[in-house]
Formats: sequence, C-alpha cells, structure tokens
Amino acid sequence: MSSDRNRILLESIKRLLRRGAAIHLGKIVNKTHAADLSVVFRSLSLAQQHELFGLITDVEQKGILFSELDEDTFQDLIEDMKLEDTVRILESMPADDVADIIGRLPEEKSKTILDKMKTAESEEVEDLLRYEDDTAGGIMVPDFIALREDVTARQAIESLQTEHSDVEMAFYLYVVDEYGKLVGVSSLRQLVVVPPVTPLKEFMTTDVFSVQTDMDQEEVAKLVARYDILAVPVVDGSNRLVGIVTVDDVIDILRKEATEDILKMAGAGEEFVETKSILKSTRIRLPWLFASCMGGIFAFFIIGEFESSLSKFTYLAAFIPVIMGMGGNIGTQSSTIVVRGLATGRIHVRDIWSVVLKELTIGVILGLVYGLLIGFVAQFRYSMEALALSVSLAVICSMSIAALVGSLVPMGFARINIDPAVATGPLVTTSIDIISVFFYFLIATALLGI
Amino acid sequence: MSSDRNRILLESIKRLLRRGAAIHLGKIVNKTHAADLSVVFRSLSLAQQHELFGLITDVEQKGILFSELDEDTFQDLIEDMKLEDTVRILESMPADDVADIIGRLPEEKSKTILDKMKTAESEEVEDLLRYEDDTAGGIMVPDFIALREDVTARQAIESLQTEHSDVEMAFYLYVVDEYGKLVGVSSLRQLVVVPPVTPLKEFMTTDVFSVQTDMDQEEVAKLVARYDILAVPVVDGSNRLVGIVTVDDVIDILRKEATEDILKMAGAGEEFVETKSILKSTRIRLPWLFASCMGGIFAFFIIGEFESSLSKFTYLAAFIPVIMGMGGNIGTQSSTIVVRGLATGRIHVRDIWSVVLKELTIGVILGLVYGLLIGFVAQFRYSMEALALSVSLAVICSMSIAALVGSLVPMGFARINIDPAVATGPLVTTSIDIISVFFYFLIATALLGI
Repeated sequence: MSSDRNRILLESIKRLLRRGAAIHLGKIVNKTHAADLSVVFRSLSLAQQHELFGLITDVEQKGILFSELDEDTFQDLIEDMKLEDTVRILESMPADDVADIIGRLPEEKSKTILDKMKTAESEEVEDLLRYEDDTAGGIMVPDFIALREDVTARQAIESLQTEHSDVEMAFYLYVVDEYGKLVGVSSLRQLVVVPPVTPLKEFMTTDVFSVQTDMDQEEVAKLVARYDILAVPVVDGSNRLVGIVTVDDVIDILRKEATEDILKMAGAGEEFVETKSILKSTRIRLPWLFASCMGGIFAFFIIGEFESSLSKFTYLAAFIPVIMGMGGNIGTQSSTIVVRGLATGRIHVRDIWSVVLKELTIGVILGLVYGLLIGFVAQFRYSMEALALSVSLAVICSMSIAALVGSLVPMGFARINIDPAVATGPLVTTSIDIISVFFYFLIATALLGI
Repeated sequence: MSSDRNRILLESIKRLLRRGAAIHLGKIVNKTHAADLSVVFRSLSLAQQHELFGLITDVEQKGILFSELDEDTFQDLIEDMKLEDTVRILESMPADDVADIIGRLPEEKSKTILDKMKTAESEEVEDLLRYEDDTAGGIMVPDFIALREDVTARQAIESLQTEHSDVEMAFYLYVVDEYGKLVGVSSLRQLVVVPPVTPLKEFMTTDVFSVQTDMDQEEVAKLVARYDILAVPVVDGSNRLVGIVTVDDVIDILRKEATEDILKMAGAGEEFVETKSILKSTRIRLPWLFASCMGGIFAFFIIGEFESSLSKFTYLAAFIPVIMGMGGNIGTQSSTIVVRGLATGRIHVRDIWSVVLKELTIGVILGLVYGLLIGFVAQFRYSMEALALSVSLAVICSMSIAALVGSLVPMGFARINIDPAVATGPLVTTSIDIISVFFYFLIATALLGI
C-alpha cells in the first residue's frame, strides 16, 4: 500500500527467496494484492520472478499481475513459460488488457497465442485489436450489459444473476433497440429502487453520453473526468453499442498522458525511462539533446561574429549566462503554462492571440523588473553606464521575446494539430538561447559604439 | 463536450445576451450540462454571469456550477446574491463540495452562511471543515450506506429505497458493527445476485481497504488508482466509518497534483495562473525567477575572476552558451524523470544511490558523445587543439555534473520530506549554470596555460 509497506514486503520476499522457503513464500504471495506484488516484481531478477510467479495459485491473480507488469518484464517472463499456462492466464483476464498485451508482442508470438485461446475469447481480443491503441475502441471492454427497453427491472436483475453474471464492471445497464443501437441507460441503483415490474423505458435516462470508437483516448478520459461518470459507452459509426470505457482505465490514461507531457517537455522521450536499461535510456535521451547542441553551436558562430566587440570589452562575456538564464526560465514558465493549460482545457487554441498577448505583457513587466536589477548590479561592478544599459535592455528584450516564443510556439503547434508538449521543450529553449545572445551583442555593439 | 462544441455554445450565449433574448437563453442554459456551462461562464463578464445564472431554474444545476467555478469567479458571483439564494443552492450540494467552498471564504462570510443553513446540513459541513483540506477527511463525503452484518440482501435493497434514497454514489454498502466500526463491504452488484434472504455477513468481503482521516489526499488517490476501486472508506482513529472518498474526486486530485508538479518544476507557482489577471500572474512568477537571477549574477562574478583569460582568448566566450545549454538540458531530463518517477511510484526514495549512479552513468555517456562532437566543431572553427580539448572536457564535465545534480537534488529533497517538484526546477537549473561556467573556465585556464 504505502511505499514503506512495499519495502518491508520486498525485503521479506527477497530473504525468503534466498532461504528457499517456498511454503512460507507461497502464503505471502497468495495473500498479497497483485498490484503490490507487481511493484515487488520489478525489483527482482528474472529467475526470482519465475520462482515467485510459479507460487501463485490463483489464475486471476496471475492475470492482474500480467497486466500490471512492464512490457519488458512481461516478455521476459512468458519467454520461458509453457504456452498453455500463458493462454490459461490470458483467458481469465478482461479482453482489453489481453489486447493491450498481445498487441505489443511480435506478430508470430501473438498469433500462436490467439490460435490457442478459446474461440469466444480470442474473437473478442481480435475485435479490439482492430482499433488503434489510443482510441476509445482500443481501450474499451466488450463486457457490458445491454437490454431492450421493454425489459422490466425484475427481469434486468435476473439477467445480472444469469447471462450477465460474468460482467465485471456493472454500474450501468445500457438500453438498446432491435438493431443494437444505444437508446438509454439506467444505473444499477435505479434498478433496485423502482417497483420490480417497471419496464426500463419508463425510468431509463435517454440523454446518454457516448463516444465513437475512433475518439482519441485522451478526449474520452477528459469526458469521463468532466461529467463524473463511471463508464462511458462506445458506439460504432451507426450508433451500435460495441463496448464501454471504465473509470479505472480513465485514471490510468490521465496519469499516463500527464507523465508523457512532462517527459516530452523535458526532452526525455515519451515513455517513462527510469526502469529501462542505461543503454536504452541513453538512446532515448540522445536525440533530444541534439537540438540544444545544434542551437549551442549556432550561438557560438553568432558570438564569433562579434569577436571584435568582445576583444575590446572582454567583460561583455560575463553577462551571457544571466541573459540566457533569465530568458530560458521565463520561456519555460510560459510554455509550461500553455502546454498544461491546453492539456487540461483551461486554455483553448482559439484564444491564441489573447494568450500570447498576455504572456508578452507579463514578459515585458518581469523583464523591466529584472532588467533594472541586473543593470544596477552591472553598473555597481563595472561603473560603465553604456554597459549597464546594454545589459538592462538585453534582459528586457530576452525575457519579452522568451515569453512570446514560449507561448506562441505551443499555441501554434496545437493549432496545426502537432502535440504542443513534444514540440515545445528543446525547440523553445534553444531558440530563446540563440535569440537572447544575438540581441545582447547587437545592443551592446550599438551602445558601446564598437 | 469537445472544445468545438463549447466554442459554439459560448458564441450563441454571448449573441443572445447582447440581444437580451432571455427566453431563448433560458432554454439553452437549462438543457446544457453544468460542466459545460462552467467553461462558458469563465469567458463572460460578471454582469453576464449574473444574468445567465439567474436564468437557471434547477437548483442542483446551480450547485454543480458553484463547485465547478474558479474561486475568484465564485466569490464575485455570490457577492451580489441574496444570502437565502446562496444558502438554498449550497444545501442542494454534496457536503464535501460545500466544505471546499465555505473553507475558502472569509471567516465572517462563511459563519453567516453556516448559521443560515439547515442544522443537519451545516453540521455535516462543519464536521468536514475540521479536517485538513488535503487529507482524506477533507475530501470525503459523509454520504455512505452503512448496515449491520445481520441485515439481509432484501432489507439492504429496501433501505436503498427508503432511508438511503439520498445517497448519491452508492456502489458499495459498508458493513459496520454495533460501535460503527468497519467490518466488511458488499457491492451493489453482489446484493442483487444473492438470494434475498442472505444476510450481509455471508457474502460481504471482510478484506476491506480503508484509509485514516489524516492520510494525504495524494496517497488516497494513488490507492484508489492502484486497486481499481470506485470508492474507499475513511475511518477515524478507532476504525469507525466516517465517510468515503469517491473515484470522481480521485480523478480531480490526480489531475490537480500532476498540474501542480508540472508548474512547480517550471517555477511557475503551484496553481494554474493562466486564468488569473496579468498582475496576479506576474506576482506569482516573479519570485521564482529571482533564483535564476541570483545565479546569473553569481556566474558573472565568477567569469569576472577569469577576465585575464578572456582578454587573451576572447573566443572562449563563444562556447559559454553551448556548455550551459547542454548541462541545463540534461539536468532537466534527469530531474524531470526523477520527480515524475517519485510521483507515480516508479522510483522509490530508498533507491537513491542506484538512481543517482544510473543518471550519472548516462550523463557521462551522453557527455562523451556531445563533448567530442562539440570539440570537433570547435577545432574546425578555431584550429586550436588546446581550446577544442578544453571545450570537450567542459561539456563532458558539465553534462555529468548536471545529471548528478539533477537526480541527487530531488531524491535528497524527497528523502527529507520536502516536495521534490517545488525544490527542483530553479535550484537545479541555476546551480548547474554556475558549476558549468566555473569548470569551463578552470579547465580552459589550465589547458591554455594562461
């Protein structure tokens, strides 16, 4: 539960593994929630993982563990497992989780597994595999309760006990017409509070939210979060109910998207890399640094152009860090606020000009404050009015431009449907560096009369 | 729903407000979901907000709008409302939302409102106000169903129709002993599938997760997210059930915490500032820039110390941006991965040394790659081996130290229980800037024999 509890659990398990205390281990493993077990799993060697996995008796517990494991850990684990065992575990899992796992395996491997699964189960999985991974279709579960509108409350309850007894997330009963088209919804709660003979059509809500199979998963998640619902029905092009997206998957999506945005803005890839190997992490982070490397090289060619100014006033160099730093930091503020604002719906793409104008105004104000402060320090250190003035103006200029670029770039990218997070980080920082340095030397050269 | 739909809605409402078409407006307002209306609301003037608010007929709709509004918008709105109207709306809302709102009002105002509310409702709210805002107690709702273990399934269903008919989020029925202590839980689903005469104790789950009232809300949210549950019961020090935290509140918390982390790391405050006024935004962002300003000033005193080196080799200055930029960027990568890893539970505080060592290794590898590349470009431009070597070594040094500082600082802060996100951004960037510049000049002075 807490990280403390997990630490104790991990240490006990490691100790028992060393001692080969299989019986004691089996007891612990089988009374621990799979979600906690998956955390422990990641810190074990492959051999230890196999040993521990073999001790789990409940096939559903194994299934939860399968869906909680990292892609790499999972692949290593099933590599040495018997195909029948893998299949038996997959059959016990919700179809959307199986589709997630199968979809990431090499084609040959996934085909072998699907061929071996029961027809009914493998068909459900194959249906889901047809949809893009990050759409409503890709994340929905085909387990839902759909009844006709003349079914009574009592009959609906009976169906929960019989034909729909295996539906796991039954908060809502969906009402469909003869063609399977979605016409209404009732909560389980409504079902038990009306008189048993009332037909669904008399108490169902006809104003039911639904999403199309191709809607982006982030949109689906926002919708569920916004309207405080527990599940949203997914319909195909002709409004036929094909699945539901449940709130637990929505939470996972929202967390994953937030992580992705944060990592992209820092130029650290899209997926979380800390659990990957050093070589893999290095490979993911390498290209993102290339942009700032190119920018830096460009900056030194620019400074090279001002070599004669620098040789006359060497202390010009001393202000490069503060001018770059101030521009870079306010640029990061602006781009972060815009990217997160767009992601959470607090800022809209259509408001591009008012957002950019506001950021620019803030940039000018903060530029004035810090420009004066830094200029004052420069005057104190070198007692040269022209130099102090150059530094002041350069800071004002750098911070204003940084706020402008930092807000305009992500807004512009969002407008042309490029992910603002991925495009923002390295691009904004690097271009602000170059622009800041260039303006600084331009202003200084003019004011110092070099 | 989508931002397109909201844009159309906003434009229609603004047009109708200009034309004073009250009847038409009323129709639109009353068939729009309050979550959508709250988005529109933020883009209207105070006078327009009042006019629109007055047109809503459903008091519950008004309540949802109250809890969706920004703090500022809300305070402005109730300023001119009659106290009775405000109270009537608050009484229709869930107690946790009312406590949220009331808790943020000036004490005098909140007292007036609580005095005016019905005793039962105001007591619930006052109970909640006793808990810290960001704990399980502060976010729980006191609306839950608690029954004794000898109650049968049929009796439980009857209680849903009678005494518990006003409980909104009824997914689970909690089972308590004679002292109100939590002993088990049953889902609504289980209730309808067992024979009606079965007592709760025969089918309830006794292994029920619960949290204490003082648990941090982020911990509660992680728990709900991890175990895929719809609500978690909250108990006091003696295990008595006092409330539940529902999944819709958990989603809000997770999103808010992610936003807070992102903003803190960019040094842009904690709360989302884009919707605030320019003056307010400026005030929030000003202090965060002060750290980088001080760092920059410190850096120019350092460079000042190397004035004699600079006057002999002016082009040393040309490499300051690339060395600072590379260090800054890899430092941001490292600190972002660590902060997000800690927040999502992928990285544990106890693994401080293995995480830092890994980051350092990656820093050295990436430093070697880019150090050689940039050194090569320097040699190409100036044809001076000693200079090229200095630049290479400075990049390697800067990137390695940046990866080290970028991972060590947040891990260290987490270890001593300071929020790693708030401490990381400006501190890491600024210290890396200073260290990079210092080592660069130190290496160059030594190698160029100045």
